[in-house]
Amino acid sequence: MANADTVTGLQLRSTAKKEGILEISLATVTTPEPKPEEVIVRIEASPINPSDQGLLFAGADLSTAKVSGTTEQPVVTASIPPAALRAMAGRVDQSLPVGNEAAGVVVRAGTAPAAQALLGKTVAIVGGGMYAQYRCVKAVACLVLPPGTTPAEGAAWFVNPLTALGMVATMRTEGHKALVHTAAASNLGQMLNKICLKDGIGLVNIVRSAEQAEILHKIGAKHVVDSTAPTFMEDLTNALVETGATLAFDAIGGGKLAGQILTCMEAAINKTAKVYSRYGSNVYKQVYIYGGLDLRPTELNRAFGMTWGVGGWLLTPFLQKISPADALRLRQRVVAELKTTFASHYTQVVSLQEALHLSHIAVYAKRATGEKYLINPNKG
Amino acid sequence: MANADTVTGLQLRSTAKKEGILEISLATVTTPEPKPEEVIVRIEASPINPSDQGLLFAGADLSTAKVSGTTEQPVVTASIPPAALRAMAGRVDQSLPVGNEAAGVVVRAGTAPAAQALLGKTVAIVGGGMYAQYRCVKAVACLVLPPGTTPAEGAAWFVNPLTALGMVATMRTEGHKALVHTAAASNLGQMLNKICLKDGIGLVNIVRSAEQAEILHKIGAKHVVDSTAPTFMEDLTNALVETGATLAFDAIGGGKLAGQILTCMEAAINKTAKVYSRYGSNVYKQVYIYGGLDLRPTELNRAFGMTWGVGGWLLTPFLQKISPADALRLRQRVVAELKTTFASHYTQVVSLQEALHLSHIAVYAKRATGEKYLINPNKG
Repeated sequence: MANADTVTGLQLRSTAKKEGILEISLATVTTPEPKPEEVIVRIEASPINPSDQGLLFAGADLSTAKVSGTTEQPVVTASIPPAALRAMAGRVDQSLPVGNEAAGVVVRAGTAPAAQALLGKTVAIVGGGMYAQYRCVKAVACLVLPPGTTPAEGAAWFVNPLTALGMVATMRTEGHKALVHTAAASNLGQMLNKICLKDGIGLVNIVRSAEQAEILHKIGAKHVVDSTAPTFMEDLTNALVETGATLAFDAIGGGKLAGQILTCMEAAINKTAKVYSRYGSNVYKQVYIYGGLDLRPTELNRAFGMTWGVGGWLLTPFLQKISPADALRLRQRVVAELKTTFASHYTQVVSLQEALHLSHIAVYAKRATGEKYLINPNKG
Repeated sequence: MANADTVTGLQLRSTAKKEGILEISLATVTTPEPKPEEVIVRIEASPINPSDQGLLFAGADLSTAKVSGTTEQPVVTASIPPAALRAMAGRVDQSLPVGNEAAGVVVRAGTAPAAQALLGKTVAIVGGGMYAQYRCVKAVACLVLPPGTTPAEGAAWFVNPLTALGMVATMRTEGHKALVHTAAASNLGQMLNKICLKDGIGLVNIVRSAEQAEILHKIGAKHVVDSTAPTFMEDLTNALVETGATLAFDAIGGGKLAGQILTCMEAAINKTAKVYSRYGSNVYKQVYIYGGLDLRPTELNRAFGMTWGVGGWLLTPFLQKISPADALRLRQRVVAELKTTFASHYTQVVSLQEALHLSHIAVYAKRATGEKYLINPNKG
């Protein structure tokens, strides 16, 4: 039998209405009865990642945001510009749960031994709908956190750590020897620096301010270039000569940056080229765009020969492509280094209700480096 | 011993001078004595392909072109804009021979039996420096043309036919089932249509005028869309739904076209999608840019999810990647279908001297669909 206090719970929902209105609300949902192989996790920590915000905000203009509803169940509304609404055609009028990853305590379990064995354990989980008080998941999908690890320490176990490890694994699989990373002072970027320092991999960090450069220098980053500096192209080319990086992961997406990276890679390669080729070098150069901090079009001037590629990169297809054994190894590394390499730092821990305060939305929606929020749906 | 009349010959040269001047001239060069395994080919036909013109013109502003020199050895000069000159840094002040492919008659041969066997044969060759009266090549690299095939019929055996076959082979290797091609009424595009019709492959042709559409309809093309039509995006999406094409080869390069193709591919895929994914479909979409008819930057609005790639594509790396057996099969097909699938049509046959007439340059430099030049360096 279920404990009375787990029968229902609040769950954050985002709806893009066909009238062009975003509505974020807290729905009261019935916690399902776990099937034999399932468990119910009481969520105690779930980060607000940039990758959650596309689903959460549906491209709405947050300067128009208003709050209504009650203290316990506030409702945020904001208008969605027509262009953004068209891009949301696939989700219009659907009330969607939000939140990619979380950690919490198993409070109920199905009858199967694997499920029963998790009762009372602190586990990390993934799969959407984590901004909720309770989440039903398969026992086999739970990552049991080591004793002494809090839900807050384990909540961001999936998106950033596996993305950073996935970048390094992609580099190896595709035959590159060093990496470039943009928006590099982010939580993810800091993890990537720790991995590359530990594993002896060259990493060129591109940041957009002196302050961000300082964050990275403090954690020991070797190559940091500032795209707002007048010497950016020269600085980047020099760092590419030193590292030999021919693969970049770009969180910015829009504007000229992806093309500038390819141009500098080609210039770095040609510093050692011996023969003129009108098609450019034959060294393959790749930029993977994995984020869209700049929503403008990507502008490629193609001043980098013919041996190049630009494409999208996502964690889920990467994980589907690698072997189960490789995927397991990556998860094991995350657990082993959860308090070191993969430690996340939060500026705020908020309840579901507080996550809907306009004052908080104004901060976390900026997705500014150094401002990271954690939701505790059972805070109180 | 060499015949007296093959001891020297004229060879077209292109030089980008550091002062920002392009110089195209006809140098008198000594024909080398063939080594045992080599032969001397008297070139009788060599096409002016778009892929030759980058090397030939070095980005010069042809509205400034002037002719000097003699009737037998004219010299064309033109100024190279500073930006283009910077891109030519790797070739500055080098006198470079031009011309990718040709056909002619073997007039001298080294002592090896394989070379001797070619004496008097009409052969097709490739490798640069073909705008010349004589070219020394390895016997093993000669493709002997079938009896009854003229040099003019065999000259364009390599660049366009193998590029068209390479596109189809790339489609198969990378798991796509149909193709999109831009600037599709070109000589190459017509070959690609003939291949696809013969092999039962779906092909969406993108053209830039009603006249070009008509050229393709006349040779039986099934899917032709005009990028200048107001219904272009809708027409393209419909053709993509009908063919299932998820791979495009783009000769244009600059502007929005590559991104529009990806956007329409995504729209076509989503017409049958059942579940909303905020990252777009998980069907991989690729545009390969293999030309630069539009020199502006490539502008990608990224309205096509995260499962996509844009990159450069060149014939030579493709041929290096496939097995020698596969490469041989492609060449054998070209020879077998030289007068049908791979027939080229020329509007002018010119001598080396005539190729340097400003009136001819003004025509072939436009690289207009339907205007194709053949050089016969031994014409006269």
